Amino acid sequence: MQNKDIKTLIQLLSRLPGLGPRSGRRAALHLIKNKDQFLNPLRETLGIVGDSVRQCAFCGNLDTTEKCYICLDDKRDHSCVCVVAEVEDLWAMERAQVFSGTYHVLGGTLSAIDGIGPDKLAIQHLINHIKTGTIKEIIIALSATLEGQTTAHYLVDRIQDFDVQVTRIAHGMPVGGELDYLDEGTISAALKARTPL
Amino acid sequence: MQNKDIKTLIQLLSRLPGLGPRSGRRAALHLIKNKDQFLNPLRETLGIVGDSVRQCAFCGNLDTTEKCYICLDDKRDHSCVCVVAEVEDLWAMERAQVFSGTYHVLGGTLSAIDGIGPDKLAIQHLINHIKTGTIKEIIIALSATLEGQTTAHYLVDRIQDFDVQVTRIAHGMPVGGELDYLDEGTISAALKARTPL
Repeated sequence: MQNKDIKTLIQLLSRLPGLGPRSGRRAALHLIKNKDQFLNPLRETLGIVGDSVRQCAFCGNLDTTEKCYICLDDKRDHSCVCVVAEVEDLWAMERAQVFSGTYHVLGGTLSAIDGIGPDKLAIQHLINHIKTGTIKEIIIALSATLEGQTTAHYLVDRIQDFDVQVTRIAHGMPVGGELDYLDEGTISAALKARTPL
Repeated sequence: MQNKDIKTLIQLLSRLPGLGPRSGRRAALHLIKNKDQFLNPLRETLGIVGDSVRQCAFCGNLDTTEKCYICLDDKRDHSCVCVVAEVEDLWAMERAQVFSGTYHVLGGTLSAIDGIGPDKLAIQHLINHIKTGTIKEIIIALSATLEGQTTAHYLVDRIQDFDVQVTRIAHGMPVGGELDYLDEGTISAALKARTPL
């Protein structure tokens, strides 16, 4: 029906997370109708990002340099490493602007169903990092899902032989959350982890 | 916080219709993590589309050729022209696969609020096309909104001096629609346009 290049563009856009065939068509038309403001800048940026962005050899974050801007930052505490599953989790932590240590991106979580074992994640890389003796604390910031917690326990097992403190970010009621809307699992976790007031 | 090129990519993606900051971030990561399957094909396709797709000089549809695939198709009825507001409307008509004539894309609808007068739409172009004497019927397929109907009436005014039949697609109950859920305007239109059974 349509021109084949436009069709390809729509198909590619439709496969972006959050978009479907309808929004893919809208996005494609938006790009075509705004070539100078939109299509060309996007094409250029994709070129730059595609050619130069890579994983930081040290922590797994994305940057154009071999060591990322966080690993290169002397003001950050390199003895405190926050372990996250994916780069988006690292970004989420950074948006909160409350963590001044460095990161380690695992590249996923253990999942028997999806066939993701320890060898598919950057776990040995983390152990090697611990062996250098520069890390004092490892903060595990994995999702509070079955896979996240399985991975957390596996990590604790692997790390326990080293002289490193391992902590986990707290589970409980989200700030701004209402008790009435909380699921049983969260209420149970929040109750168990209650703190003196 | 992030690398500036990744930031630019996120910003550009966030501005696509249907996406916001959160889905823009997800889309950017999806692209970066799947360079070969996704980022590079998208970049290439944007290049091709950006360089070669343009409006058909005849009807306003988008294609890489000067005359689009519809205008070039001898099997289509060139004496019956369907007037639509935007290219997306033309695509919607084509998806229905029930129209075998050709199109004329106005490029919008008249809107006093947005300052869109007849000179900003491809109306004179349509009149010139009518003057060639090849058109027998003009089907107006504009949205059933205030702007769409204002534009339809304006077109009828402009076309009435020519020997061309002007029709409008029917307004009524959408197929699959339930009477109970219809707004008063649609019920009124459907009742007025009732047909013998």
